[in-house]
Amino acid sequence: MRKIHVIGIGAGDPDQLTLQAVKALRSTDVFFVLDKGEVKSDLTRLRRDMLEAHMPEGASYRIVEARDPERDRGAGGAAYSPAVGDWRSARAGIYERLIAEELGEGQSGAFLVWGDPALYDSTIAILDEVLERGGVAFEYDVVPGISSVAALVARHRTGLNRVARPVQITTGRRLSEGFPEGVDDVVVMLDAHQAFRKYADQDIDIYWGAYIGTPDEILVSGPIAEAAPRIERLRAEARERKGWIMDTYLLRRHPGER
Amino acid sequence: MRKIHVIGIGAGDPDQLTLQAVKALRSTDVFFVLDKGEVKSDLTRLRRDMLEAHMPEGASYRIVEARDPERDRGAGGAAYSPAVGDWRSARAGIYERLIAEELGEGQSGAFLVWGDPALYDSTIAILDEVLERGGVAFEYDVVPGISSVAALVARHRTGLNRVARPVQITTGRRLSEGFPEGVDDVVVMLDAHQAFRKYADQDIDIYWGAYIGTPDEILVSGPIAEAAPRIERLRAEARERKGWIMDTYLLRRHPGER
Ligand SMILES: C[S@@+](CC[C@H](N)C(=O)[O-])C[C@H]1O[C@@H](n2cnc3c(N)ncnc32)[C@H](O)[C@@H]1O
Ligand SMILES: C[S@@+](CC[C@H](N)C(=O)[O-])C[C@H]1O[C@@H](n2cnc3c(N)ncnc32)[C@H](O)[C@@H]1O
Repeated sequence: MRKIHVIGIGAGDPDQLTLQAVKALRSTDVFFVLDKGEVKSDLTRLRRDMLEAHMPEGASYRIVEARDPERDRGAGGAAYSPAVGDWRSARAGIYERLIAEELGEGQSGAFLVWGDPALYDSTIAILDEVLERGGVAFEYDVVPGISSVAALVARHRTGLNRVARPVQITTGRRLSEGFPEGVDDVVVMLDAHQAFRKYADQDIDIYWGAYIGTPDEILVSGPIAEAAPRIERLRAEARERKGWIMDTYLLRRHPGER
Repeated sequence: MRKIHVIGIGAGDPDQLTLQAVKALRSTDVFFVLDKGEVKSDLTRLRRDMLEAHMPEGASYRIVEARDPERDRGAGGAAYSPAVGDWRSARAGIYERLIAEELGEGQSGAFLVWGDPALYDSTIAILDEVLERGGVAFEYDVVPGISSVAALVARHRTGLNRVARPVQITTGRRLSEGFPEGVDDVVVMLDAHQAFRKYADQDIDIYWGAYIGTPDEILVSGPIAEAAPRIERLRAEARERKGWIMDTYLLRRHPGER
């Protein structure tokens, strides 16, 4: 039986691999590295460096690189989910072919997933779709990883939630539609448009980080009104310099607290 | 300058330590282990075992055990937060004394925190309070860990969120007051009363786990209506057998989806 590991590798710092992830890497014959295009090639290199650091001297393993199909990002609003659906099917086709053609019976393959595979990542859903299609049989397990969310708040030395209170993790798109109901602590991912600026007139602290865990890491925190202009400037400069950016932030609202 | 590490050690599986956590352990002179009483002594033992496994042969380090003050759990509802506040001050007093008396100038201390220090844990807030009091000076950093939430969904091989949708992390107490607004994916922690039973008539899947990552791990998933009686039975049996239980679950609602 073919065996697949979905391995969370942390969000940038190679030391954020868990011992379980290192063991899973070491038991892998074939690594599948899906590249999302040039802007992310830094991340592909980071994955290769991790393998070089952790695979034992003289280990025999193969790296198979493939191009992830581009998602149709043009369609907004309601069209978002169907576009994601098509994209997921296209990916399922690619994953199926990779597993069937590149992985021998009895061999182990691995997908190295950025951060934690449970957060805004489709690898698990795609593997389930490949299994449903029935074209290739395999078993898989998931190795949890340090998410960019856990890395963000650790670097800011703050908690995700306040005592006995909830926290929500959402997207920039959702935040731009309104502040989530029933929570005052909100983590925002996948925000290309700095949706936090909409809330600059409210009593909210922001804990922001870009390239967290990498040598390019940038951290800013403070009341949104003060921090927002700094974040905008640093973000634009970094994006210009590197060609891409990944950032995440926690908003902590203080309703009538001070 | 005294230096403190707040180290997330994962939620039960010793292999969920990160490489960064192992390095931080190895640079520590004094470990502070706060015991919450007999029911949790299994967890204290697990921490000691981790140290034995990862500290280099012949390393010199000390373990200082102290009793965490009991929280006043009698007071319900509105009284909850002040009780937590008093409890936190009592703990700040203890932590301050531990750091001042047990840690020499220039030495490193560590608090080993279950799961991820960012989730429903007060170590960071207490250290901030100790620093504010000004009685003892130190620097501290936070090493993120695999939370029980990340471990839960990895074992169930599912994501925390669905595509482009938010997820909320909350407490059993909150869930018993109503299903959170604006989200269909909700993770529940600190639930002593199985609040999910209130939603057994709704189209909701539950992904439940107890003692996740340990040899006693129990996992159950399925529509709440079917899974709830099984969870109740397994939970009661395990609690009876071990004297304590730690469980977490994800609720995934399917409004008009099927
Ligand atoms: C497709 S999601 C994947 C998240 C990943 N599975 C995780 O657990 O962090 C990509 C988003 O994660 C966040 N992200 C990932 N790595 C990051 C990093 N090193 N620094 C800041 N944000 C990061 C950004 O919000 C980015 O838009
Ligand atoms: C005080 S909170 C601490 C959470 C911890 N910081 C984390 O990241 O998992 C304790 C709650 O965490 C959850 N929990 C911790 N460890 C667990 C485990 N091994 N299995 C299931 N639930 C666990 C339970 O919901 C428990 O009530």
